[in-house]
Amino acid sequence: MKKNENAEASVLKIIPLGGLEQIGINITAFEYEDSIMIVDCGLGFPEDDMLGIDLVIPDVTYLEENIDKIKGFVITHGHEDHIGALPYVLKKINAPIYATKLTMGIIEHKLAEHGLDKQVTRKVIKFGQTITLGAFHVEYIKTNHSIVDAAALAIYTPQGIIVHTGDFKVDYTPIFGDAIDLQRFAELGKKGVLALLCDSTNAERPGFTPSEKTVGRTFDSIFEEHQKTRIIVATFASNVDRVQQIINSAYRYGRKVVIEGRSMVNIIETAIELECLSVPKNTLIDVDELKNYPDEKTIIITTGSQGERLAALSRMANATHKKVNIGPKDTIIFSSHPIPGNEKAVTKIINELLQKGADVIFQDTHVSGHACQEEIKLIYSLTQPKYAIPVHGEYKHLMAQAKIAEQLGINKKNIFIMRSGDVLKIEKKKAKIDGKVPFGTVFVDGLGVGDVGSVVLRDRQRLADDGIILVLMAMSSHDNQLLAGPDIVTRGFVYVKESDQLIDDIRRIAEDTSFNCQNREIKDWGKIKNSIKDSVGEYVWKVTKRRPMILPVIMEVE
Amino acid sequence: MKKNENAEASVLKIIPLGGLEQIGINITAFEYEDSIMIVDCGLGFPEDDMLGIDLVIPDVTYLEENIDKIKGFVITHGHEDHIGALPYVLKKINAPIYATKLTMGIIEHKLAEHGLDKQVTRKVIKFGQTITLGAFHVEYIKTNHSIVDAAALAIYTPQGIIVHTGDFKVDYTPIFGDAIDLQRFAELGKKGVLALLCDSTNAERPGFTPSEKTVGRTFDSIFEEHQKTRIIVATFASNVDRVQQIINSAYRYGRKVVIEGRSMVNIIETAIELECLSVPKNTLIDVDELKNYPDEKTIIITTGSQGERLAALSRMANATHKKVNIGPKDTIIFSSHPIPGNEKAVTKIINELLQKGADVIFQDTHVSGHACQEEIKLIYSLTQPKYAIPVHGEYKHLMAQAKIAEQLGINKKNIFIMRSGDVLKIEKKKAKIDGKVPFGTVFVDGLGVGDVGSVVLRDRQRLADDGIILVLMAMSSHDNQLLAGPDIVTRGFVYVKESDQLIDDIRRIAEDTSFNCQNREIKDWGKIKNSIKDSVGEYVWKVTKRRPMILPVIMEVE
Repeated sequence: MKKNENAEASVLKIIPLGGLEQIGINITAFEYEDSIMIVDCGLGFPEDDMLGIDLVIPDVTYLEENIDKIKGFVITHGHEDHIGALPYVLKKINAPIYATKLTMGIIEHKLAEHGLDKQVTRKVIKFGQTITLGAFHVEYIKTNHSIVDAAALAIYTPQGIIVHTGDFKVDYTPIFGDAIDLQRFAELGKKGVLALLCDSTNAERPGFTPSEKTVGRTFDSIFEEHQKTRIIVATFASNVDRVQQIINSAYRYGRKVVIEGRSMVNIIETAIELECLSVPKNTLIDVDELKNYPDEKTIIITTGSQGERLAALSRMANATHKKVNIGPKDTIIFSSHPIPGNEKAVTKIINELLQKGADVIFQDTHVSGHACQEEIKLIYSLTQPKYAIPVHGEYKHLMAQAKIAEQLGINKKNIFIMRSGDVLKIEKKKAKIDGKVPFGTVFVDGLGVGDVGSVVLRDRQRLADDGIILVLMAMSSHDNQLLAGPDIVTRGFVYVKESDQLIDDIRRIAEDTSFNCQNREIKDWGKIKNSIKDSVGEYVWKVTKRRPMILPVIMEVE
Repeated sequence: MKKNENAEASVLKIIPLGGLEQIGINITAFEYEDSIMIVDCGLGFPEDDMLGIDLVIPDVTYLEENIDKIKGFVITHGHEDHIGALPYVLKKINAPIYATKLTMGIIEHKLAEHGLDKQVTRKVIKFGQTITLGAFHVEYIKTNHSIVDAAALAIYTPQGIIVHTGDFKVDYTPIFGDAIDLQRFAELGKKGVLALLCDSTNAERPGFTPSEKTVGRTFDSIFEEHQKTRIIVATFASNVDRVQQIINSAYRYGRKVVIEGRSMVNIIETAIELECLSVPKNTLIDVDELKNYPDEKTIIITTGSQGERLAALSRMANATHKKVNIGPKDTIIFSSHPIPGNEKAVTKIINELLQKGADVIFQDTHVSGHACQEEIKLIYSLTQPKYAIPVHGEYKHLMAQAKIAEQLGINKKNIFIMRSGDVLKIEKKKAKIDGKVPFGTVFVDGLGVGDVGSVVLRDRQRLADDGIILVLMAMSSHDNQLLAGPDIVTRGFVYVKESDQLIDDIRRIAEDTSFNCQNREIKDWGKIKNSIKDSVGEYVWKVTKRRPMILPVIMEVE
């Protein structure tokens, strides 16, 4: 391992391809001569204006263009925003994947779903272990997060050591495994850290994120207080530690546990198999066995804490769940915080649950998985990096971390707020953002990857706002005679049965316009269609103040 | 005034027509024999699934059916969720409006916009004044809220006194006018209050809402700290007290004030005219005059604190505002909290402002306008009502107030969680929910009121999710021969230029289906269209996992 800067070394490039404009889509390339390694490969969830889009993945054109250099994907942990784009990207760039045990378990499940499990090389890494990827050596360092087996990375490059925290928090009393390896961060700091890429998610929050263990005590007291009702706990599918604590409390209070929701069942099964979760014998039961036990002797752990419309909790709340009916004998605990944007969906479910007579508890049973300001300061102080590169967050989060770095004495010109596609070049003790590679996001809609772009989305927005008006005509190809129509068909515009007059008026205007074109001997069908679009659009705006899509169609008949 | 229950009195009915399922659409009818009075007439804002809808107003069928009984609209304060539906409802039910000075000023502006100012009778009421509406006498009582001139109502009915708080908080040190008239609430309590309808918005929050005055001190300290930059404050257009405090601080620090955003300009002009806001001479300037002053001597008070896409602050943030450019010499203060559902829009603007180099302050410059738990307890303790009817809020808020009422000793069977359309009947010392009147919501989309309903919204949702595929054919009316087509046109489905093959396949399947129908001698065009819809839909689902709207169209040619 080369640990110091090498005067003759080439340029080291750090190229984030996502993760800096929004939460999600974390992917960063490290390039040195003919070696590229990629840290994480996550997906994002669609914004409100991305109508009909299921997922968002990074544009990896730059990686495709340099496919021969790529040595592998180094994954920090098993959350969707760090691994979710792998199946899509691997179809273009089949390179080895490196990850810790549970992380790899979750990735393997995903690869199998996409039929990629046979063809992709995978290697499970232990904390403390170092792997070599071309010019890079990468060491896995234990951290804590809201999923088991999260890692930070020490990336040894010919220019120096880069530390990448991944998503992390400092938990001195974790549920599973060890606390974050602060000693190793300190040792690296002593050796000299060239750059720190640190999680910014909670950089606006003062203080220290509480230990996951604090939540367990709260569960115990809630279980103590609610010994006469069934308990349903909604939480994040991937938070294995949380599930462990709920199972522990359930066991202490003699309750059987049901796991509900496909994604939670998947991850919990993987975690049990890999021994990241330990369940006392005869504690887990199937949802079908619920009827064999009194309500107050059971507990259901379920997905849906974010108000997701199709998740198990939503189906329970709106009475479409086939096996669980909510009533006054239920206590429902939200062991979660609404992610920004989900507040109204969560509130809707709470109202539905309350209306069914259930008791809903929404406080004190969640802690964040991300470092707050004091933890960020701790990592900076241990590693003492020359360059600070805040990662994982929106601009405001990156800025908040930049301020912290500055407070800790890092020279402002050594703090880099990067944007996706930026190339940070480091050589000869100097670093600068210089150049841009192709970057962006690709939309996944159903099976389609990239076939929906801004044009299609603009159309969807227009259709969503005001619907569509079709003006249908058949014309003779010989003499442009109108053989049939114009007929008017609308969808999503007005309730047609009660708007006869309006539809009639639109038809008449389209007809007038087409005759007018005929009189003016306009033969070009494109021009005729545009005239109709304009006259109908103008009229509709005047009488309704709406702008539906207007689509004139001429069928050519010989 | 009859203050006690009358053994021979008829039934008193309390009929909420909105405001109990969601925030907004506050409207409640009080009915006694041939008298109906209506408290408030508010609008709601569309939920996420109400695509393209501008506003939501209450269904007032019940009022129309009983139009002869209606004595008037009694308005508590000038917020949209209490007055916004007036112009729409008045077009059907022209009855007198009663309101305090500023509230009426805002209503009059609204009526003028709808051309209703000439034909509607209006009466401005002072606090302490009592008006008669048929069988009812209504007294206006001073309260505090996030708009000046808010009132509670004491409604004297032959069955007893009903107290309706409107939206309120308890502010011992208000900015304009007096503190809430707690003595009057106590006097009414002494006389005996039959029922209390009390604001539930903050019923989940413990403690006491701080005085508006606390915000003023924070403004002073922020102004003190930021003497070298321009200051831009975003807040609610109608919060006259907030604007007053910002103007006070600006004046103290020698800054000129610009008011930006149409709704804020309107309300501030009205407030100045009615002397609810006092502005030192030569303090207000026009936005065009900004260039005549150094940045650090000006301040802009603007709309857009909720991230509204077309509001002034949004336009400044995305550089489409014609007169204000944001840069490093700006300090932007959000004097507001994001209303649930607006979090992401607000964050988007903050990120944009930060990227322009501005300093953004998001803390400690807002207090709520609604009573927290201790204030609610105070009003219950002063009025000691027999019946408790929590109002203004979602189910969870109403439930939270119901719990407070129970804690204060009100018999559980005397607490009524009502739903819109419920009829609460009170007679002979008994109250029960008995019967239902027509109720619901009506969508306003552009100029259309009620012409968009669930069918249209369902279509819009489908169009938004996956777009539309048109299958166009011309057929002979004589022999069902296909004269032209099938042609395929899509919008919002895929990027057509890169999906030739898919579109070709769809065309071929539609053609096969139509030939198939011909071979089976199917003459019914409805059946042909359904067959095409099914076969194309099935194919599209198989290859894309999308469900666009499929619309086969047959033009009839003779």
